[in-house]
Amino acid sequence: MTLDWYEHLKKDFVQGFPAFCGFEVARVDHGVFETRLEVGEKHRQQDGFVHAGVLATMADHTAGYASFTTVSEKFRILTVEFKINYFKPAVGPLIFCRSRVVNNGRTLKVTESEIFSVADGIEKLVSKGMFTQIAVAAESLNAPPSSPGGRAAD
Amino acid sequence: MTLDWYEHLKKDFVQGFPAFCGFEVARVDHGVFETRLEVGEKHRQQDGFVHAGVLATMADHTAGYASFTTVSEKFRILTVEFKINYFKPAVGPLIFCRSRVVNNGRTLKVTESEIFSVADGIEKLVSKGMFTQIAVAAESLNAPPSSPGGRAAD
Amino acid sequence: MTLDWYEHLKKDFVQGFPAFCGFEVARVDHGVFETRLEVGEKHRQQDGFVHAGVLATMADHTAGYASFTTVSEKFRILTVEFKINYFKPAVGPLIFCRSRVVNNGRTLKVTESEIFSVADGIEKLVSKGMFTQIAVAAESLNAPPSSPGGRAAD
Amino acid sequence: MTLDWYEHLKKDFVQGFPAFCGFEVARVDHGVFETRLEVGEKHRQQDGFVHAGVLATMADHTAGYASFTTVSEKFRILTVEFKINYFKPAVGPLIFCRSRVVNNGRTLKVTESEIFSVADGIEKLVSKGMFTQIAVAAESLNAPPSSPGGRAAD
Repeated sequence: MTLDWYEHLKKDFVQGFPAFCGFEVARVDHGVFETRLEVGEKHRQQDGFVHAGVLATMADHTAGYASFTTVSEKFRILTVEFKINYFKPAVGPLIFCRSRVVNNGRTLKVTESEIFSVADGIEKLVSKGMFTQIAVAAESLNAPPSSPGGRAAD
Repeated sequence: MTLDWYEHLKKDFVQGFPAFCGFEVARVDHGVFETRLEVGEKHRQQDGFVHAGVLATMADHTAGYASFTTVSEKFRILTVEFKINYFKPAVGPLIFCRSRVVNNGRTLKVTESEIFSVADGIEKLVSKGMFTQIAVAAESLNAPPSSPGGRAAD
Repeated sequence: MTLDWYEHLKKDFVQGFPAFCGFEVARVDHGVFETRLEVGEKHRQQDGFVHAGVLATMADHTAGYASFTTVSEKFRILTVEFKINYFKPAVGPLIFCRSRVVNNGRTLKVTESEIFSVADGIEKLVSKGMFTQIAVAAESLNAPPSSPGGRAAD
Repeated sequence: MTLDWYEHLKKDFVQGFPAFCGFEVARVDHGVFETRLEVGEKHRQQDGFVHAGVLATMADHTAGYASFTTVSEKFRILTVEFKINYFKPAVGPLIFCRSRVVNNGRTLKVTESEIFSVADGIEKLVSKGMFTQIAVAAESLNAPPSSPGGRAAD
């Protein structure tokens, strides 16, 4: 059952914007999600570093799925807010993200993501963020667009 | 001179990851940068909303260029950290971002970005973030990869 | 009725730690709270500036009461998280804080606080913060200590 | 030499607002600072919990001194910004704070603080924050008030 849920999340992770960015799932466990990215030209900013937005997206999405491992399919995880620090420029060629739920509240969850730039097999911690998420009833998000239902900070 | 710099920044804004995402420049002024995004399927997350990472990237990149308007071409702007709150799901079809420098320090700059989801001509504030950036000498970033020079939180 | 509530909040604001710190209420309106502090030696840090913790406490507490103006007495406001930036050292002799609800969700509220150091009648913006708060049923906090009930990120 | 510096920091920690609040030093090591607080009525907010501002102040001040252990007496540490999450209400009677430098840049330092509420010998993680600090030359802060010198985000 749990393994089925993890397998489902592995596939669910890769769609829409995260699929477009090229993030891949590396590992899943209870309250833990790990992902990777092979850096291409499209991920860079004006100075040649991986764009802060790529790292923020990876950190946010991986953190969201770390929280998904702690709920059933009756819930959806939405980001309430996050904060992220950039320590060093990330140049790749590989980026690794490890997310971990640090406070598993019933409704509000707090998750941390650490991002590593990997070159020649050496990991360097380049960024770290803290994320507040809300678990909402999946059915509240299935309402037709004209009646969006209760949402995040709504 | 200033107008040349603004014209340069308008072009400089659209490259790498932000170009890949499809962000466009709408307006530039001293300490102000405004951008827009036509939402496509690739920008969405698993529930059909614009992904938090798209909004974070747009808010970060626009904030960075708001700060670029306050320095000369001898400087580069790097993100030290940011925090962003999501108020309501953004569904589009148009997203608008307004960034404004709120504390224009010589080295450290603090900028705010407000993100609006626009439908039927009505703007709804869906997200707001605060960004700390550092202005570094452009030449310090031009060093060869083997000697990365001073950087962000380095 | 509303005015009674505002008068109640003005008194409720000044108790416990905020009273100990010496914060005073200046103005209350719907979604708005303003407070002041006469700076003494006890408010300073090791370099003679007003301590970051004084400003954070003032910003947080004032933000909380800005949100209190938007709910009835059946609710309590608790801080989920906040982020604050320090622009310039605050030296006083007067500190002024203006808080404003920027997204008045039913359960989650987002509020901003701006802090000004006032000298010779001139206000200088020295700090700004963004706060996420949760409105919880007052009765859920009245349970005896041995059964703390649902709480913030619980 | 290092031990002398640590002993100096232990004393330097307790002055001004932190002394007023009653924080005490528990342990010092390279990049690490730990402090404690015996909770009194003056530390509480309107619902009887330890005030978010007390925890933020403790987390900020302890984080600052964790960074002080990594520099010489020629530098001062100032808070650029921080973000803090509150997981559970802290009721005491003892509060413990552990701070650790997570990115020890030359100029910008990033530090984390974890806060525990301790009752009956059991520690509960109630709050966690991330802090960006700047190391500035001590002499730049000793200038007379009319020439404040370089500062935080100035």
